[in-house]
Amino acid sequence: MQPSVAHIKIKKINAGEQTEVEDELAVEEPLEIQLGWHQSTGYAQKNISVTMRTPGNDAELAAGFLFTEGIVQHIDQIQHILPQQNSVLVTLKPGEVPQLQQAERNFFTTSSCGVCGKTGIDAIKTAPVFTQPRPELVVPASLFYGLQHTLQQKQVVFETTGGLHAAGLFNVNGDCVLLREDVGRHNAVDKVIGAAMQPGLLPLHQYILLLSGRAGFELIQKAVMAGIPVIAAVGAPSSMAVQMAIEHDVTLIGFLRTDRFNVYSGGERINLDPQKIVIKAEPR
Amino acid sequence: MQPSVAHIKIKKINAGEQTEVEDELAVEEPLEIQLGWHQSTGYAQKNISVTMRTPGNDAELAAGFLFTEGIVQHIDQIQHILPQQNSVLVTLKPGEVPQLQQAERNFFTTSSCGVCGKTGIDAIKTAPVFTQPRPELVVPASLFYGLQHTLQQKQVVFETTGGLHAAGLFNVNGDCVLLREDVGRHNAVDKVIGAAMQPGLLPLHQYILLLSGRAGFELIQKAVMAGIPVIAAVGAPSSMAVQMAIEHDVTLIGFLRTDRFNVYSGGERINLDPQKIVIKAEPR
Repeated sequence: MQPSVAHIKIKKINAGEQTEVEDELAVEEPLEIQLGWHQSTGYAQKNISVTMRTPGNDAELAAGFLFTEGIVQHIDQIQHILPQQNSVLVTLKPGEVPQLQQAERNFFTTSSCGVCGKTGIDAIKTAPVFTQPRPELVVPASLFYGLQHTLQQKQVVFETTGGLHAAGLFNVNGDCVLLREDVGRHNAVDKVIGAAMQPGLLPLHQYILLLSGRAGFELIQKAVMAGIPVIAAVGAPSSMAVQMAIEHDVTLIGFLRTDRFNVYSGGERINLDPQKIVIKAEPR
Repeated sequence: MQPSVAHIKIKKINAGEQTEVEDELAVEEPLEIQLGWHQSTGYAQKNISVTMRTPGNDAELAAGFLFTEGIVQHIDQIQHILPQQNSVLVTLKPGEVPQLQQAERNFFTTSSCGVCGKTGIDAIKTAPVFTQPRPELVVPASLFYGLQHTLQQKQVVFETTGGLHAAGLFNVNGDCVLLREDVGRHNAVDKVIGAAMQPGLLPLHQYILLLSGRAGFELIQKAVMAGIPVIAAVGAPSSMAVQMAIEHDVTLIGFLRTDRFNVYSGGERINLDPQKIVIKAEPR
């Protein structure tokens, strides 16, 4: 496996003084995600995307990307995942057909999109896989206070490089069950969701997603695809992130600190009374 | 023009107390970049990309994107730029041909990429437009200390939303000549470069680019396309950002603070002696 940290010599300039030191950088390398499947006419293979990622958990990244982009709906469709130096080949089982029209949503190769505006945004939206009713979930506000601390303690690469985003999956007791890091925040989320696919955890109806940075539209969309009901970000959300959270009935928290946070949507899932902690996670 | 800030009601939770307040969010909306040109067979139009951006300076964003992606080489090739609600149509002058093979570098639609690794990264690199020798440039270290403060003072939307990246173009005296903000850091850089194209400032051989966040590969590549010799980031650079800066003889500074910074490449452009400030900007 390629390292996720690179060592180089740099110059530190401090109040006019220069010193030469060894420094650590977060590695950023391209990963090509390739998809193979069986057609009636034979085996087909397609390069789906090139993403700039931090090496590590490449198989999870590929699986998570294919899932959150709506190309693959379930881990059971996948025959095998073959990570190489800077590429991952995901091969589907015989009979499984990838939803490739979804892969083109971000990159129009024809003029068929028509007049933009509503059409444009519709074109970049993915169709959620899990449409069944979600179980009710209510978590105490105090649970969120400690999440960032837990994430930071586990974030090993950021510690040395200062250069990585993290995405963490927490259960309703506030335990971090999965943590992934990457130079790209969307990759960190894809890695977490890809890792959750393997043991069959999806839909993640009883989990909280923690984002180390800002919450953009794309990250909310990926979480929605995986069925995540509560997203907490250390940074600010964007307008469209809030819009998408409201649309999909997701609780969105921003500016998470150790004693306070902002609630942008789905406040009914947060229980304020610390004396009355109730976690309901049964289907309603 | 659409607003770049949205107002919504949110709940603030602070040490168990909940208050409802009016809050401001950075707007994130899709922008479709459309390109029109004249072929021997008639007028052709193509949707090049959809980017999630903060509304404002859409024409600059489209021009900058087409330039930094290598599709258009010079502002003189453009006949007119027509911004609409969530799209921008850039029309080329008769006789001008867009370099569309560049547009496909990030999204392979065939398997022609072949074995990945070197091939993959080569495929996502753009070919620099300015290949002439650059003038020598040496700037005092002290010039960098004040840049972040200047940027922050000018960053109006971040002030209210906390949710935007900024890119600033500074001259060798430390004056901020252009500042653009966006939810996407690549968009902020495209807006700055697009704004610099109009008055014919390119190549930006005597300018410093300041990035409010981390420096990834993509941002260095965009700066290289515009001929920028010095890039300073408030955050960490990635390994590939450093590699690309070295490859293109660009000075790359990271972790910029008011009295210190790290130099990852091109240290010869930084003059440490504050008594001996020399700015040479003539062609060598």
